[in-house]
Amino acid sequence: MKMLEKGVTAPIGFCAASAAAGIKYEGRDDMALVVSGVPAKVAGTFTQNVVKAAPVIRDIKLIKEQETARAIVLNSGIANACTGDVGKAANEAMAEAIAKVVNVKSDQILTASTGVIGQHLPVDKVEKGALLLKDALDDTKEAATKAAKAIMTTDTHEKQCAVEFELDGAIVTIGGMAKGSGMIHPNMATMLGVITTDCAISKELLQEAISADVKESFNMISVDRDTSTNDSLMILANSLAGNEEIVEKGEAYKTFCEALGCVTKTLAKMMAADGEGATKLLEATVKNAATKEDAVKLSKSIITSNLVKTAIFGSDANWGRVLCAMGYSGAKFNPEAVKLWIESEAGSEVLFEKGLPVEFSEEKAKEILLQKEVKVIADMNQGEESATAWGCDLSYDYVKINGDYRS
Amino acid sequence: MKMLEKGVTAPIGFCAASAAAGIKYEGRDDMALVVSGVPAKVAGTFTQNVVKAAPVIRDIKLIKEQETARAIVLNSGIANACTGDVGKAANEAMAEAIAKVVNVKSDQILTASTGVIGQHLPVDKVEKGALLLKDALDDTKEAATKAAKAIMTTDTHEKQCAVEFELDGAIVTIGGMAKGSGMIHPNMATMLGVITTDCAISKELLQEAISADVKESFNMISVDRDTSTNDSLMILANSLAGNEEIVEKGEAYKTFCEALGCVTKTLAKMMAADGEGATKLLEATVKNAATKEDAVKLSKSIITSNLVKTAIFGSDANWGRVLCAMGYSGAKFNPEAVKLWIESEAGSEVLFEKGLPVEFSEEKAKEILLQKEVKVIADMNQGEESATAWGCDLSYDYVKINGDYRS
Repeated sequence: MKMLEKGVTAPIGFCAASAAAGIKYEGRDDMALVVSGVPAKVAGTFTQNVVKAAPVIRDIKLIKEQETARAIVLNSGIANACTGDVGKAANEAMAEAIAKVVNVKSDQILTASTGVIGQHLPVDKVEKGALLLKDALDDTKEAATKAAKAIMTTDTHEKQCAVEFELDGAIVTIGGMAKGSGMIHPNMATMLGVITTDCAISKELLQEAISADVKESFNMISVDRDTSTNDSLMILANSLAGNEEIVEKGEAYKTFCEALGCVTKTLAKMMAADGEGATKLLEATVKNAATKEDAVKLSKSIITSNLVKTAIFGSDANWGRVLCAMGYSGAKFNPEAVKLWIESEAGSEVLFEKGLPVEFSEEKAKEILLQKEVKVIADMNQGEESATAWGCDLSYDYVKINGDYRS
Repeated sequence: MKMLEKGVTAPIGFCAASAAAGIKYEGRDDMALVVSGVPAKVAGTFTQNVVKAAPVIRDIKLIKEQETARAIVLNSGIANACTGDVGKAANEAMAEAIAKVVNVKSDQILTASTGVIGQHLPVDKVEKGALLLKDALDDTKEAATKAAKAIMTTDTHEKQCAVEFELDGAIVTIGGMAKGSGMIHPNMATMLGVITTDCAISKELLQEAISADVKESFNMISVDRDTSTNDSLMILANSLAGNEEIVEKGEAYKTFCEALGCVTKTLAKMMAADGEGATKLLEATVKNAATKEDAVKLSKSIITSNLVKTAIFGSDANWGRVLCAMGYSGAKFNPEAVKLWIESEAGSEVLFEKGLPVEFSEEKAKEILLQKEVKVIADMNQGEESATAWGCDLSYDYVKINGDYRS
């Protein structure tokens, strides 16, 4: 398996484009398009929020009903959530505008939006944007990068990656792009993700692979515990790699899932590290928990605790907060069996063991926590299951970004 | 029912004291004692955190086994959590030192600690503090106030209140004190609460009353979603008011519960308003929900959302975040039936109705949100249940208090 410095255009047969439609932002691209030259098997996972944006409602329906899709159009600036029937119509219009330029039926076009809730998508601007997207469509790495940039909100850089691997002698590629948390005019930490692949795989297994994958990747990150109305992850698989179609859960399926996990985890970590106001990536691994469910609850509880997040911001080895966050996670465990340590490029330091604090070097701990990527590891010593979650620290800038923007 | 500007010494037969034992802080009181002159029925509720501090473990056992207790001793500065058997022994020593000065068996003494996790309680200092507490014991309002101050950590002011009401011609009084969130050397937002009453009531009903009450009071507040290892609420009822003992759930029980709720809700709101770094109190009321459980989930989800909290800090009528937080609360509902408005001393403004944003005055909304007490109200229009939760905004100072203190 090989990581590539590419994005959604890495697999055979995919083009991407971006355009400045002026939906909300001035002087930057705010629409992106990803197109497969041939119909691609489609699967996706979406927000669990009861309040779902118009594009989310439509995508869920189409992906359920259809085997394939041809393209995904995305816009930033306006989330098209809580906009009622007007919003549904605007979303449909966006799909139709793209259907015209791609020359397919509109049900072959999936949609995604991110931005302010409760504002209406300007259909005229979207339609003009669609024409610009048509002219910009290209299969280059640059086109992928521009598309990844166009969906950014308060993200400080674009998020894309790709991986290639071999199946039955064929080179198969998976590419992906995502946007993380926050917006220039912030309202919601929306996650949008598009994965492309030329792998031949049945729609059922594609959906199963992506549904299983998010549990270990995107569902294991959190910037602020606020689940957006717009979270969408969609994958298009156009079968052009030439491998034998994956129709059962054998070795080939396993290899595909591994490669998919490589792309999704890379994107997920990029999102966590670029969380609103973040100065560092926080990775929490829980080992040897009694059940997988416990391991997940424990690791997510650590990375979502505001008190842990502020301690990491202050490079403070405040392990009591970590143990406390584990304690209220909902998982049952014996605290006296837990061993807790921190780790980064600067080394590692044990902080707690067998129910008691360990004498540790404050200086060394500080040095470890001052790095850009910081790990907190808990060995539960009560089973064999593990899980890793990713988050970021909580800084002044998080408050600034989310508290100040309209004052 | 009448509110009194008093605290735990308001009911007949209760004394309080505070002392500077030098456990961690310099130049301030850090131990508090509340004593009933006669054995008092005892009940309590404690943290659900798997990681429980030594005093919590002991109190739970004693309250389960015993009908009565005579006194509660509390210290600030050190939480005595994650301290193993050494911590349990230190906690027992604290109870024994107080038992000597009150002249009862040590199992009549309950204990509570708040402060840094993983540090050991200095028994010698606690024993000296116990002697100081003995000399300071008094039934005055001042003694209650000093006790309420001694348990403070990063609280900016003490939290106490009292209420009196009539039962069978007897004047019954309930007094209480609590500490909120944060510490001078912050580690954990621990909540400690002590309620005293001269009401005659059976232990079973006292426990039932306090267990039911916290669901509407202390369990409905949140500063940072971090459930402490030390949260403790204990109530002593010494029967000296002269009312007929409450042994069944009739009118008298109902009156007692109302008065109790008055004290606990007042303390709970004080705690929320004085949350770490808070500049205002945020009250979320959810009306006409399908079930009580839904109403609780929805209102708590609003006040715990970091995005809502930062918007309130910025006095920004960002209603999309409120609806989003409701959407991921776990409660099922139809967003299009919801009506949402904000309210404060400066008036009220509707922001969302029937699935659509309402045109509102940004200026008016800002004026409303600039007040010290801000209400967000959601009418679900899908049932008859309601709930109210209290929180606070998320400010730069929250990050400062919790991120900076050891750097």
